[in-house]
Amino acid sequence: MSQHSPTYAITIRLRYPDAPGAMGRITTAIGDADGAIGAVDIVNITGQAISRDFTVNAKDVEHGKAIVEKLRSVDGVEVVHVSDRVFLMHLGGKIEVIPKTPIKTRDDLSMAYTPGVARVCRSIAEDPDASFALTIRQNTVAVVSDGSAVLGLGNIGPRAAMPVMEGKAMLFKEFAGVDAFPICLDTQDTEKIIETVRQLAPTFGGINLEDISAPRCIEIEERLDKELEIPVFHDDQHGTAIVVLAGLRNSMKRIGKELSEVKIIVNGAGAAGTAICKLLMLAGATNIIACDRAGALHAGETEADRTKQWLAQNTNPEKISGPLSTAIKNADVFIGVSAANVLTLDDIKSMAEDPVVFALANPDPEIDPRLANSHVRIMATGRSDFPNQINNVLCFPGLFRGVLNVRASTVNNQMKLAAAEAIAAVIPESDLLDDYIIPSVFDRRVAMVVAKAVSEAAMETGVARRKTKSAFDLT
Amino acid sequence: MSQHSPTYAITIRLRYPDAPGAMGRITTAIGDADGAIGAVDIVNITGQAISRDFTVNAKDVEHGKAIVEKLRSVDGVEVVHVSDRVFLMHLGGKIEVIPKTPIKTRDDLSMAYTPGVARVCRSIAEDPDASFALTIRQNTVAVVSDGSAVLGLGNIGPRAAMPVMEGKAMLFKEFAGVDAFPICLDTQDTEKIIETVRQLAPTFGGINLEDISAPRCIEIEERLDKELEIPVFHDDQHGTAIVVLAGLRNSMKRIGKELSEVKIIVNGAGAAGTAICKLLMLAGATNIIACDRAGALHAGETEADRTKQWLAQNTNPEKISGPLSTAIKNADVFIGVSAANVLTLDDIKSMAEDPVVFALANPDPEIDPRLANSHVRIMATGRSDFPNQINNVLCFPGLFRGVLNVRASTVNNQMKLAAAEAIAAVIPESDLLDDYIIPSVFDRRVAMVVAKAVSEAAMETGVARRKTKSAFDLT
Repeated sequence: MSQHSPTYAITIRLRYPDAPGAMGRITTAIGDADGAIGAVDIVNITGQAISRDFTVNAKDVEHGKAIVEKLRSVDGVEVVHVSDRVFLMHLGGKIEVIPKTPIKTRDDLSMAYTPGVARVCRSIAEDPDASFALTIRQNTVAVVSDGSAVLGLGNIGPRAAMPVMEGKAMLFKEFAGVDAFPICLDTQDTEKIIETVRQLAPTFGGINLEDISAPRCIEIEERLDKELEIPVFHDDQHGTAIVVLAGLRNSMKRIGKELSEVKIIVNGAGAAGTAICKLLMLAGATNIIACDRAGALHAGETEADRTKQWLAQNTNPEKISGPLSTAIKNADVFIGVSAANVLTLDDIKSMAEDPVVFALANPDPEIDPRLANSHVRIMATGRSDFPNQINNVLCFPGLFRGVLNVRASTVNNQMKLAAAEAIAAVIPESDLLDDYIIPSVFDRRVAMVVAKAVSEAAMETGVARRKTKSAFDLT
Repeated sequence: MSQHSPTYAITIRLRYPDAPGAMGRITTAIGDADGAIGAVDIVNITGQAISRDFTVNAKDVEHGKAIVEKLRSVDGVEVVHVSDRVFLMHLGGKIEVIPKTPIKTRDDLSMAYTPGVARVCRSIAEDPDASFALTIRQNTVAVVSDGSAVLGLGNIGPRAAMPVMEGKAMLFKEFAGVDAFPICLDTQDTEKIIETVRQLAPTFGGINLEDISAPRCIEIEERLDKELEIPVFHDDQHGTAIVVLAGLRNSMKRIGKELSEVKIIVNGAGAAGTAICKLLMLAGATNIIACDRAGALHAGETEADRTKQWLAQNTNPEKISGPLSTAIKNADVFIGVSAANVLTLDDIKSMAEDPVVFALANPDPEIDPRLANSHVRIMATGRSDFPNQINNVLCFPGLFRGVLNVRASTVNNQMKLAAAEAIAAVIPESDLLDDYIIPSVFDRRVAMVVAKAVSEAAMETGVARRKTKSAFDLT
């Protein structure tokens, strides 16, 4: 699926004699090499020579190199420097920590630091819950990973996972004003991760677990959420499930079927697949079949894995066995959280009328959308370059905004369902299209409505802890 | 030492009939109650009534309440609301985490997050050291505390320690552009603290330990600094020692004595006292006597505490014993890192000519400077309301700036000495005064010269690891 992308943008600095025709020769060379020219900026002009930065979108790294080679062959043109735009953007990290108020005078210092800070400290020492009002806990979550299951890259370790967690922190702030800080841990041991996050709790108002491989992620989340005074939410499980449910709600409206009646295949029985099954069942789905590499999970077979065992017992009411290609027959919905190209066109052709296919494997879906398109009614992927992008960024910023606003102690099922319904309802039924069953990730309304729905659900279910009286109010 | 202070500022919202003389009656009442009026802002005017916010500096919390009571007694004036300025400033925390670049378009998203980020992750997975260039590690330190020895407040716990660590993070950014994030740990167990910080290392470029009680802080720092790929620096020990040495260097110039010849009393044999002794010895001091509550530490007596044992063996060459009042006789310098009012005027009178007294206990010094002033040549404290403030903020921002600039693996003695000499040298000898032996905490030159000196010392001693070739440079 190679196309020009800012993901492979390079900036090439060229120096050449400033004469008529020079620009033409250069841009023609870039075009000949199939490069897509973006910005062109003058760097400087010295004597007869001019230096310009050409930013060019390539299709991949090798293509970028080929474009540079082509330019080297242009007479009189010197390649001064080539920089990779994506690496440049990451240089020194993508987030910073700034004071909310300046410290320019002694008065500033005496209020924000010593001696004034002592009174605030004492007040929290007397009432530790005041830390939710008087420290960054009010608005701050940790994005915690061990680097064991990062994007589609697998176990690349905590150092290499940092750019993803930093990116996530950016999205938290950009979409919902939540301060998020990445924490990548130098261990992949379940007990050590739990122990470390436990010690970090006094600093944060919530924990977003991220890119931790299954099945450890399930135990880590369950135990920490139970133990800590702050909510612990594994986004890869529940964030994915919430956005899938939102997309499925709107898909049902389009095809005129009921979630409670459709047959749903969830391919991939890891953490995300399990969370999707559970949330869809809470939302009313009754006929889900979870498949792993070995085929449909069904009662009667004993699964080694605790969560797979649960799925086998609690899904697949017709006890269908066999491979995906068998299970998918007459299914209304396919949800893939598995691997590239595991779904065939024949599989889709065997589905019921108006097939709904969410092929969410990243970066390459379970089936190429261009291949599947004419055989499905509704197609969704995790990619930004096709319609109906199922992306967790539709959920996590608003969800944590809602959690922090009411100091929720946990993220319960009602809050997850409320988040899903809120995302779905952003698009009025009259505006829904087969290619528009989920809002754009840049739809700024989403985070706001998700936050409101999550806060309300937290209050209704008694997990909101916000006090109305502020410590600073002396009246 | 009660005086009007922004530390006790309150903002009082008053509503009253907008008539000539009203302001006069209100401001007179505040004056009668001995309040110091700052800003006066109009909130709104409705019909005949006006609402104004009066910001008033009080001397303490009770005084603030008395001012409000006085205002309640003024005819026709309604006290609508009173807020505590310091608490207001702390509401929701004092720092925030922001993206360095906006995420407004799909192109932004695809470069900072998926799919573009994957290439950066892979690059770090291949070369983990690249994380020092391509993530926030390049510029970010953790300010880690367990809340066991916070300011003069003692063991108030991690939640109550947060406002101090947030304040420190503000200073890091304000004075040296260093991104710092507070981490307050829910444990005071040495092994658990070490284990937790060890797991956090992949996220940070350095660790600033803070307000951890002795002797645990010494072991924690030593073991972590040895074990981790990033420097670990306990500011309460070394930051204090560095600023003390800087002040002492300049004091010696003023009084015309040599550091190598003077007799120095260090009162307080905890972590800070020990670090001061060690650094002064490295700087050439030969005659230091460390005192704890039981008096002078000296060889021949066995100390239970490992660091006190070291002090007993390595200081006090004349093996003087007895209480502080005995040890201090004929001393040239007194450095107190102990407790309020443990130094008497008689002690000072028994010192050698031109006594130098650094009374650094916070918030109340070892002797009230107003009492001591006429009997000492040079007096320094930790307070901002007297001359010669020995404040760690003169050291830590610039020191970590220097460490991060060259990716130093540790903070060794040469770097500490270089930092101290750099701070001292900010004031040219010709400008030194007895009341000006140390730069102001707001002297913006300090962080820059400290950073430069620390970077150079790191390079000279072979602990700088900065690579010149950048990963993003494709040339």
